[in-house]
Parts: sequence; structure tokens; C-alpha cells
Amino acid sequence: MRQLGRKIYLENKSRVEALENLVGVLEEAEFFNSEYEEISVDDSLGRITSEPIYAKVSTPHYRASAMDGIAVFSTKTFGAAETNPIILDLEKDAQVVDTGDPIPDRFDSVIMIEHVNFADDNRLQIIAPSFPWQHVRAIGEDMVKQEMLLPSNHQIRPYDIGAMVAANIDSVNVKAKPRVAIIPTGDELVKPGTELKPGDIVEFNSRVMSGLTIEWHGKPVVFPIVPDEYEKIKETVLQAVENSHIIIINAGSSAGRDDYTSSVIEELGKVYTHGVAIKPGKPVVLGVVSGKPVIGIPGYPVSSALTFELFVKPLIYKKLGVEMVEREKVSVKVAKPLYSTLGMEEMVRVKIGRVGENLVATPLERGAGVMMSLVRADGIIKVPRLSEGIEVDLPVEAELFRTLREIEKSILMCGSHDLTLDVINDLFHRIYPGFSLASSHVGSLGGITALKRKEAHAAGMHLLDTETGEYNVSYLQKYLPNEELLLLNLVYRQQGLMVAKGNPLGIKGIETLIDPEIKFINRQKGAGTRILLDYLLEKEGIKGSQISGYKKEEYNHLAVAAAIVANTANVGMGIMAAAEALDLDFIPITEERYDICIPKAFIADERIQKLLHIVCSEDFRKEVENFGGYGTKQTGQIVWSNFLIKEGRLCEINLQEI
Amino acid sequence: MRQLGRKIYLENKSRVEALENLVGVLEEAEFFNSEYEEISVDDSLGRITSEPIYAKVSTPHYRASAMDGIAVFSTKTFGAAETNPIILDLEKDAQVVDTGDPIPDRFDSVIMIEHVNFADDNRLQIIAPSFPWQHVRAIGEDMVKQEMLLPSNHQIRPYDIGAMVAANIDSVNVKAKPRVAIIPTGDELVKPGTELKPGDIVEFNSRVMSGLTIEWHGKPVVFPIVPDEYEKIKETVLQAVENSHIIIINAGSSAGRDDYTSSVIEELGKVYTHGVAIKPGKPVVLGVVSGKPVIGIPGYPVSSALTFELFVKPLIYKKLGVEMVEREKVSVKVAKPLYSTLGMEEMVRVKIGRVGENLVATPLERGAGVMMSLVRADGIIKVPRLSEGIEVDLPVEAELFRTLREIEKSILMCGSHDLTLDVINDLFHRIYPGFSLASSHVGSLGGITALKRKEAHAAGMHLLDTETGEYNVSYLQKYLPNEELLLLNLVYRQQGLMVAKGNPLGIKGIETLIDPEIKFINRQKGAGTRILLDYLLEKEGIKGSQISGYKKEEYNHLAVAAAIVANTANVGMGIMAAAEALDLDFIPITEERYDICIPKAFIADERIQKLLHIVCSEDFRKEVENFGGYGTKQTGQIVWSNFLIKEGRLCEINLQEI
Repeated sequence: MRQLGRKIYLENKSRVEALENLVGVLEEAEFFNSEYEEISVDDSLGRITSEPIYAKVSTPHYRASAMDGIAVFSTKTFGAAETNPIILDLEKDAQVVDTGDPIPDRFDSVIMIEHVNFADDNRLQIIAPSFPWQHVRAIGEDMVKQEMLLPSNHQIRPYDIGAMVAANIDSVNVKAKPRVAIIPTGDELVKPGTELKPGDIVEFNSRVMSGLTIEWHGKPVVFPIVPDEYEKIKETVLQAVENSHIIIINAGSSAGRDDYTSSVIEELGKVYTHGVAIKPGKPVVLGVVSGKPVIGIPGYPVSSALTFELFVKPLIYKKLGVEMVEREKVSVKVAKPLYSTLGMEEMVRVKIGRVGENLVATPLERGAGVMMSLVRADGIIKVPRLSEGIEVDLPVEAELFRTLREIEKSILMCGSHDLTLDVINDLFHRIYPGFSLASSHVGSLGGITALKRKEAHAAGMHLLDTETGEYNVSYLQKYLPNEELLLLNLVYRQQGLMVAKGNPLGIKGIETLIDPEIKFINRQKGAGTRILLDYLLEKEGIKGSQISGYKKEEYNHLAVAAAIVANTANVGMGIMAAAEALDLDFIPITEERYDICIPKAFIADERIQKLLHIVCSEDFRKEVENFGGYGTKQTGQIVWSNFLIKEGRLCEINLQEI
Repeated sequence: MRQLGRKIYLENKSRVEALENLVGVLEEAEFFNSEYEEISVDDSLGRITSEPIYAKVSTPHYRASAMDGIAVFSTKTFGAAETNPIILDLEKDAQVVDTGDPIPDRFDSVIMIEHVNFADDNRLQIIAPSFPWQHVRAIGEDMVKQEMLLPSNHQIRPYDIGAMVAANIDSVNVKAKPRVAIIPTGDELVKPGTELKPGDIVEFNSRVMSGLTIEWHGKPVVFPIVPDEYEKIKETVLQAVENSHIIIINAGSSAGRDDYTSSVIEELGKVYTHGVAIKPGKPVVLGVVSGKPVIGIPGYPVSSALTFELFVKPLIYKKLGVEMVEREKVSVKVAKPLYSTLGMEEMVRVKIGRVGENLVATPLERGAGVMMSLVRADGIIKVPRLSEGIEVDLPVEAELFRTLREIEKSILMCGSHDLTLDVINDLFHRIYPGFSLASSHVGSLGGITALKRKEAHAAGMHLLDTETGEYNVSYLQKYLPNEELLLLNLVYRQQGLMVAKGNPLGIKGIETLIDPEIKFINRQKGAGTRILLDYLLEKEGIKGSQISGYKKEEYNHLAVAAAIVANTANVGMGIMAAAEALDLDFIPITEERYDICIPKAFIADERIQKLLHIVCSEDFRKEVENFGGYGTKQTGQIVWSNFLIKEGRLCEINLQEI
């Protein structure tokens, strides 16, 4: 039997202390000493000089004409004027030169061609004198032989390459790229492209770490997946230490492997830290083998990417001898309290948008396994170790994943999930480069709350008023009574039951759900689909507790559909487009209206104007109709507002008049 | 005879109008339509998606344990408490799972291993209940099959690669890199590495344009140098139009070629602009051949690099469908009026530094031939077309070539040129990554003026008081009477006459300079060396007008030395290190003191503190002593100050006490 209860981290060091400790040890081991390689100047773009670069020749290397004109000896031109033209002999007194031509020694200046009249083939007339060295480029005017063109530790730009080539330099000593060996370990890992069995995990952390290494001017060396065997891990580490500067053991997330990592490092060298007070990423291992850092990076993708950045990026830059490029930092506010674990520095991925005066941050999924939380993130908030969270309205620092410029051009949309929101975002990228739409799926009621908290520009919703059969309006009147709002129809959509292809259990409708053999999967409370289901159940006189799986909740239509595909559940309620996307059968129940609510304050905003144009566009309509189950009869029309506004498609209304 | 007076530009269009006009024509020709290529996800870092990317599988693709622990069915655990432990059978009621392991269908939750006690090999005890789906990762928790992972026109980052691999995507359609054909033309151009004759110009513009193209996500295709022959240029353009998106004809700077460029384009297609109101860069030609832009870029390196950026960068980004990344912009002030040509938009390269409250911009060489002005520039000021210049104290926008962060860490030093200043800058880069020293060579008196205008943190000087034989102090007292200043010795240095190797003209000393056969080369007025020379001449009773070449001025020691190497002059005054650098003979005349003057206001500045540490370092002393003609007996010592300060090496003084 396996030994259990073994996942005990030795330490809970602070991130800064752990890194400083490692850097100190590596400094003593002279790990950061400069290493260089000689490369062709043509290949040097973006590389870092390892020594000062001196010009090998002067440029120009001869006295050159700076103009098209005639080279003359200035004393021969003195006194020339419009009223006193001087005639020069083209053989003896002057010579035609183009820009860049050498000036013969007997001349000392150039007169622009525009100021010369040719009397005949051999004689010319000038009407102004030249002064010595006029329009003559001195030798070395651009650069002088032996001049320092570039200092050490300078990242080479296109201009620098030009200057080096001009200075007759053909090869250059640059810092060797720190080689980062990345060793994925784990029995459960499979190569991308493998047919997946339950329990198989596609190995992709190495791809993320490779990309980051390249961005930080290092050179990744990815090893084949190593199984969970102590000796094999050890052998691979030894091999990597031989040929690389920094060695990464990317443990899977199971506990046994952590032990292997630290034990292997301890056998071959020394572990300096095992366990850092960060979340995610606690089980990181920092060690040194033969004077080189060997780092155990946790397996969960978010932990992996973030700890790699925290502990490996500084080592690469320090090895290169240049200042680490940090992420841009901005001050943001959170729209609701952001709780975190006392004693752990927590790295929370957030969406960020400019809503009114503030940059508002909304936390994304916090699970260390959700890679998409990094893809979707606009930035990260590091909640300090000795804090239990971030309070509303207190400014807090966020490190940006995108430029502030991009963030300022992003619409924050909260509320119900709909597939067409992704289509809108795609159209933003195609039609208005730089602009984008970010949507958080918090359910229809969540969207209303977000508007109330001023953490979104718009909210998507499909809230059935079970008393009137109307959509959305009564909810807005109830929850946002003091706001001036506008409701725009995005689409109508078919709601119904999603079931496996061929409907093997013969599910017919809502009334079937009480069959104890049928496993249902629900949406979260506050979701419009949940409200619709509860309304339908009530009409049928069914209680939630009668349905197997009623308590199992998913946060969007696709996730419900995916659960049915995987046979975790047999049926769930959702939109037809989601069923079609995952090739499920669909039992239509009702058509519902999905609207976007926009506060008046944002309607004139450039981003919202562009949103309106997209919603009203033929492109959008066509793409929506390509999905199944959508109706566009009112798409782009105002369905309600509580302030004075013209009727019609909003994008056709002069927004200045609102 | 060649036809002269031919350099007449057709137009003087504004930059914006010229570009908009070209873009409009290209839009009509559908030039900007999206083009894609399919590549491996592994190779996609930094590329731009040409379509939305959808997940091919859900992740996780099975119900997975989120913890190391035991999988259980929650109803079997209800009621468990510390006071009421429940015993589970390891075969029947529970199963050990590691993080990532699949959860068998008969279980619905996981209890963390820390909360489990093993009674024996087959039985375990729990002291807390599990709730349904506790510590279970739902199918699709990270991403759901068919979910849009990335929109179109999105630049792929390491995280995105991870997500794509996780989503079982192995190849991706990305925008084809716009291919930029670069055709260098000109009889005077030679390949790098060629033995240079007078009139030869090394072709390096294509290297600069290639590097810029790569930075802008395009693909450069550099053609061999084409001679100045109409038919050959035409043939090459035709070939380039066939295989590239954007075609650059890089005319040399001679006038004949401009005609070829526009004539070739006119024959093959249409010229839309010939002559733009920008300086440098006026002779740019914008044309279209077979629906593709063919652009004549002027030959001077600065004109070439800047017009390439102005007219080609927007085309590349627009073709890629992403927002053009613009240079960071900041508000700066100029320390002295910056005059420019009315009617031309002038692009002035500037050094920028934080001096006190302001970002101060100092213009660099404005000649279009000075490549180093781009290498040295921190940014560029675009002086509008209808302006005659920029006034002092009016804020003006500068586009940055370096990050603001780097600029904020840069010392601006003005004044006399000395080779050891480059050594200091190099040491900054080696010891204090991110910090740097930028020096403008304006002569010793120019440095004092710069301090007065608050456009520099420090000034280097070697100004002999011809009455007292003392250095620098009397000048500071005279020109900066109200400033609190400190004078730090940098070096002593040998001044003398530089002559060709072997001293073929037998030059002995100052008195020889009046020989009419000897061509002298001088330093500019205000340079310490010029003051020294004039003092020495006066002692000898010699007038400047008696010396051949007295009026020909160079701005630094190396340029004087280079003129002698090139035999443009036979003798010049300068420092021994410059003579040694260019392998000249040197006739010593006097040892002079070269000091750095620092206003009290800057002494506590982090940058100046680092400067002091460098000046006092062994590294600096050693490198200086490697040059010939330097003395370091007082290096780093305070030689004078007009406020209370302790004596000694400044870096050893507690700066807080100043």
C-alpha cells in the first residue's frame, strides 16, 4: 500500500526570501558570470552585447559631398552674388559631384546644384560664394574609428545593426542565451496528439515555459516526458545539469513526485527551499546542483506558469546582465471584496476594464488547474501574505498581462453566458483592431449586480418574469430602480433539454426529469436558465429534490453539454447552439429573449458605439444564424429604456442625441 | 554631360495625407485582405491568429480528483465528525486517488488525505463529511470542447500555446507574415566586408529595414545590390512584386536614382506621391504596382530608417489586421529653442533625461547621414509642418526609442568629450543594469551652459584659466555664480599634437603650425582644447590666421585624429588616448585636469551616487590606465566646492550629510 499523509512541506518561506536566498547561493557559485558567443551581426537582432562595440572604420571614410552640386575651392568663389556672378571652368575650378561622391583634395566645398547655372558644357556660373567645408561631410562625421558604438549589456536594435555594419563590423560577441532545461515528469502525462484515456493529462506546461523562456531571451531545451521513477528523474537531471544553465523539474501534481524532486536534488546537490508561501505554487522546490539552479515547478498549469515566472525569469535576466523587464503596473479597484488566505501570498488573475473613472478588476477562476484563467486574464493582483484580502474601493496594484492601451479599449461585459458574445469579441478583433469584448459568465442576476457595482459596461440577460411571461425589464426595475438604462435585444434563442445523441433514455420533457434513473445537471443559482427551469418545474408541480443531480451546478451552457457528452449526466437544460456545438440531441422547450442592458452613462462611449455597430452588422447576423437555435428578428433593437430615446435599431440612432 | 538641375520633387504633401492616400488606393485594390498559413502550434509564439480558435476537446476530459485523497460517495460520509468518526471500507466505500486521477462513476467527491486516518490496510476513518462534487474537477472545468479559446487577430502568447495544446490543437492558421522586399540600388554601394575605396558606401540600410520588419512581424526579403540602371531596377521590382507584399526601392542618395525609382513605378504602375513635407526624408516615393505598394525610400540612413517607419510600418500592421504598436509618448521640454524649417515636418532625434522635475530633451546631430544619431537617440520630436520650431519651456511630445524607465535611470552629461565617459557608460551597463550615462559633446563651455539651463546633471570640463594656470574653478565662478556646485576630478590627461605615424612632416610643436605646408585641424570654439591651443598660440605670439586649417573645426578628439589618419589634415591638438586609439604619433605638450562639475541638487540622486561609485572603482581606474596618456592620481576626489563638504574621495563621504 502507498504511503499516505506524506505531503508535508518543509517550509513556508516568503517568495522574496526564497528567491534572494537562491540568488545569494548562485552568486557565490559564480553562476551569473558573463558567458558569450560570437555571432554574425546579421543574426544579432535582440541579442545582448557582452562587451563594448567599437567602430572599425570611420564613416564616412573619405570627405564626401553632402549634396548634389559642384565641388569648388572656396577662395575662388568669394564675391559671387546675383549682381556679380562668377564664371568657373568645369575642368579646372569645379567638378560635378553627386551626394556621397568623394571631394578631390584640391576642393574644399560644394555648391548646391540649384545654385549653379551652366553657361555651356565647360563653364558654369555661380551667384553665391561657398564657405570652406560647406556641404562637405567630414571623415568620421557619423562615427569615428575606435569610437564606442554600443556599451556592454545592450540589447541590439535594428539601428545598432546598421551602425555596426557601417562600422565594418561583421561579427559581434553577445551574451550566450541561458539554456533552460525543462523536464516534464509524471506517469499520467502524455504527448500532445495522443488518444486520451481517463487519467491521461496532455503535457503542455513545457510549451508554456518554453515560450516564456524565449520571451525572456533564454533558450528552452525540452526533455521527453520522464516517468515517475526516481532513478530516471535523477539521470535526466544529471544530463540536464551537464548541458544547461537552469534546470526545471516539472512535477505532476501528485504528491509522490514532489518528494522525488526534492530528494533527487538533495542527493545531487542541495535543496534550499521546499515550500513557498504563495498560492498557487506552494510546493515549489529551489535547489542547486553543481552550481546551477535546479527548480521543482508544480504541475498544475497556473502554478507552473506563475512560479516559473517568479523564480526563473529573474535568474535568466540576471545571467544575461540586463535589467529584468517587469510587467506594467497599474492601480485598480476591486468591485467586491477579494478574500485570500492569511499567510499565503495569493496571485489572483483578474479581468480589468476602465469603467467610468476607475480601472475595475474582476477576479477570474482561482483554481490552479484553469489554464484559461491565464489566457483570459488582463492582469494579476498579488494579495500580500499578511492580508486576508482586498477591500472594495481601496486602490491596489495589478500587474498587467496586456497593455493598458488594450485594456482601455476593452468592454467589460458581465452576466449570462451566450456563445454569440464570443462572436462579438471576434468581430471586434477583425473590424476594430485594438478593441475587444471581455465577458464574465456570472449568470443574468450576477450581471445586474455587476452593473450596480459599476464593474461592467453592459450585462447580458434572459430573465423570465414568471408572473408576466416578460423578459428582463421587471428585474431591472426591481434591482436597479435608480439607474437610467437601455435594453438592447441581442438574440432570441431556443431553450430546451440537451440529451445524448439519439436520446437513448427517451427523455421527452420536463416531466421526465423525476425519473430516478435519469441524472440531471443543473445551472447555478441566478442563471436565467435556472430561473426558467424552476419556473417550468413549478408549473409541472415538481420539486428540485425529486430530480437526481439537481444540486450539481455548471456555470455555462457548454459545460452542461460537455457533462452529457462525458456521460456524467444524462440531461441538462440549455440553448440549442450549445447542444449543436457538442453534437447532442436537443428537445426544444421555449424561445427566450436574450438582451444586453447598457447604462445610459456608457452609451456614448466609443467602445459601446462600436459594439452597437457590430451587433447591427450583417457579419454578426450571419455568424449567429450559422449557429442553430438563434433568432435575429429584433437583433440590435431597443426593447426598453427608462429614459427618453428614439425607437429603432440603436446603431441607426444618432447617439449624440441621447 | 549629365543633365543637371533635375532634382525637382513633384509634391510637398503632408505625411498624413500621403499615407492616407496610399492606404486608400491599397484598400480599393484589396491589398489588406487577410492571408493565412497553417503552422504548428509549437511554432506559433508571437504569430497572429487568422481565425477564431476553438477547443477540440474538453479539459479535463474526465472527472478528475483535484486533491490527493480518497474518492467517496458523499451520502456515505454524512454525519462524520471528530466526535463521530465514520469507518469506510477501502474496497467498497472509497478509493485512494492522487490529484488528476479519474473519479470512478460510483463516487461523487474526494476527501483530502490530510483528513483521513487509515485504521488498517483495508479500512479508513473520516472525521468530516464530504459534500457532492467536493474536490472533483468537472469535465470542461478549464475549457469546454467548441469553446472559443482565442479570437481572430490575436497575437499568440505562451499561455495561449499551452491552452491550445491542452485543447488538442496541433496546428493553427495564422496571418502570413507580410513579405517586404528590400532592393538596395546604387553604383556606390558595396557589400559589407568589402575593401573600401573613396566613394564606396557600405550598404547597411537594408539591414536596418530588415530588423525593423522583423520587429513589426513582417518577413524581410533582401535583394542583392542593383546598379543604377533603369532596366535592372525595373526587372528587380517586377520580380519582387511577384513574390512580396511590399516592395522597397532604397535609392542611394544621388539624384539620378530618384528619377529611376519614380519612373520605374510609373512605368509598371502608378506613383501617388513623390515628395513628402518631412525632414529628413522628403524624396520618398509612394506608388502601387499590381495592387502592391512600391515605395522609394531615400538613401541617407536616417531618412531611410525614419521614412521606412512612417510609411511601411502602418502597411505591415494593417495587413496583419492588428493595431499598430506605437512608440511610447511623453511630454518633454527643450532646454534651448529648437528651430525647424517652416513647411516641413521635422523629425529631430533627441537625448532625453529627467533633470529635476522635467524630462529635458537635447537635440542630437540633425544630419540625415548620421546613423549614430538614431543609435544615440532616446526619442524623436516631430516638429509640426507649420511651425518654425519649439520654444523653451513649452511642453512638447516626444516618441520614445527607449522605455521611460530606462530614460529615468540615465544621467545626462554635457560638456567636453573624453573617452573615459564611454567607459563609465559601459560600467553602468555592467554593474547597474538599467542605468546609463549619456554624454553630449558640446565642449567644456557648452557643458557649463547646459548646467545653467538645467539640461544636464553633470558637465565634463578642462578649462584652463590662462591668468592663473588653474582649471575650471574660475569659469564656474564666473558663469554659474549663484549655483552650489561641486567639482570632482575624473582624470588628468596628456594634451598634445597628433600627427601621422612616423611624423613625416617633422612637426615639433606649436611653433611649427605656421608652416604653410602643414594643414592643421582645429576644435570648435568653447572646447577646452581650443582654449588651450589659443593660449599656447598667444604665448608663442601666433595668430590663428597664420595657420592653414585653423578654421576647420571638429567636435571631438577622435574626429580630429580621424582627419589626420585620412590625410585631410596633418596635425591637430588633442589627447594622447585619441592618438593611440587611431595609431597616430603624439607630441605631448601639457598635462591638463579634466573634472566633472555636479550641482549640489543632484548629488544625492541615485544615478549620481552610482556614478561616484563607478568613478571611484578599481574597474574604472584600470580601464582608464589601459588608455595611454591618462593620470588617475586625483580620480574621484573633490577638487573644489562652494558649499560645505568634507574632503576626500566623494564616494567615501556619506552623501546624506551633504
